[in-house]
Amino acid sequence: MQGTREPQSQPAAYTPTDRTVPTRSADRASYDRELVHAILDEGYVCHLGFVRDGSPVVLPTLYGRIGERLYVHGSTGSRPLRMTGKADPGLPVCLTVTHVDGLVLARSAFHHSMNYRSVVVHGIAHDVTDPDEKRTALDALVDQVVPGRSRDSRPADRRELAATAVIRLDLDEVSAKLRTGGANDDPGDLALPHWAGVLPLRKGYAAPVPNADLAPGVDFPDYLAAMNR
Amino acid sequence: MQGTREPQSQPAAYTPTDRTVPTRSADRASYDRELVHAILDEGYVCHLGFVRDGSPVVLPTLYGRIGERLYVHGSTGSRPLRMTGKADPGLPVCLTVTHVDGLVLARSAFHHSMNYRSVVVHGIAHDVTDPDEKRTALDALVDQVVPGRSRDSRPADRRELAATAVIRLDLDEVSAKLRTGGANDDPGDLALPHWAGVLPLRKGYAAPVPNADLAPGVDFPDYLAAMNR
Repeated sequence: MQGTREPQSQPAAYTPTDRTVPTRSADRASYDRELVHAILDEGYVCHLGFVRDGSPVVLPTLYGRIGERLYVHGSTGSRPLRMTGKADPGLPVCLTVTHVDGLVLARSAFHHSMNYRSVVVHGIAHDVTDPDEKRTALDALVDQVVPGRSRDSRPADRRELAATAVIRLDLDEVSAKLRTGGANDDPGDLALPHWAGVLPLRKGYAAPVPNADLAPGVDFPDYLAAMNR
Repeated sequence: MQGTREPQSQPAAYTPTDRTVPTRSADRASYDRELVHAILDEGYVCHLGFVRDGSPVVLPTLYGRIGERLYVHGSTGSRPLRMTGKADPGLPVCLTVTHVDGLVLARSAFHHSMNYRSVVVHGIAHDVTDPDEKRTALDALVDQVVPGRSRDSRPADRRELAATAVIRLDLDEVSAKLRTGGANDDPGDLALPHWAGVLPLRKGYAAPVPNADLAPGVDFPDYLAAMNR
């Protein structure tokens, strides 16, 4: 990836820790770096967890990835972003990205499940203060949602940059978890007269809705049309 | 809703608290009970946050709603569910449900956004020990994913019930947040030659994949076909 300072060679897997080894369904866990990157790169919404006054808070927010760093942005007035000033030691967070791929219907209620891929990142989020890193991170956030979009929009000006807080979370303590395949019913249930299988979720986008105030002559760009595969 | 003990009349809105009043974009927040229920009922995956050894943990999991209660289940060996024994005072959690409805592309990078509806529930999760409540909750969890499915599957037997932990979270400290509509660019940016508007996400399901070991003569049921609208 351009503009990053990734080492030339990295271990193929993240090192498991007490926090990233699941107590159950360990066969569904993975620490493979490429898999983790692929899951992260397919999404753009994460659920960011932090602790406030001793209680957990989980908020949906956009993220962007550059190499081994994730970036989250928000108003400088928002709660998690106010809690990561440069004077303090950072904010412990858990950032989770989940893709639901299908509903798994089994003959038994017990074996109903969901096909999914998720990534859970534990770490300390730090405020990004370097202006260049901040600009690069904001481009990554826009391009995470629509690849190439940062080049086809007006970049943030000085006032907008000042109003935007960006926090950084290193990919270090990371795990992926995934389930694929059909229903796993008990042998004694296979003859039951209930349909079993997977309902895959449809992905992609419906017809675009242009803004009412769109300037005349502005066409729907090819890179947006390409997003619908 | 059947089988619930909701009072005949409830306040039309949840009472805002310090935790449920956002510091930013307060115009996007709502405490409307019907809206909260509608957002919850459209989903089945939540992100459950809790605190472990002082650090936040956020895990994706299924949920079900019965009236003013949410239920989450899992193996009795899984971490959050082990932390809510009947001897202890419950586990402080934050349960968040998010629906992404569309990508909002603005002429300025700064005004890029997302149309979404989310619900955030704060509270104390308690272990469900009453067998009847546990059965009802498990039905609700299955029916949350596929309405009517609990009646077309083998109910959990004693062994499966014992292996399943269910926790309950009351809808009390709750807020919804939503964004709708097109891009809100600054007046000075409206003439820029960048496309602006919304890319709505497609929802629904692709062609079902029957299990390879499906018993002969089991048809794809009407209530599953109806899910694709």
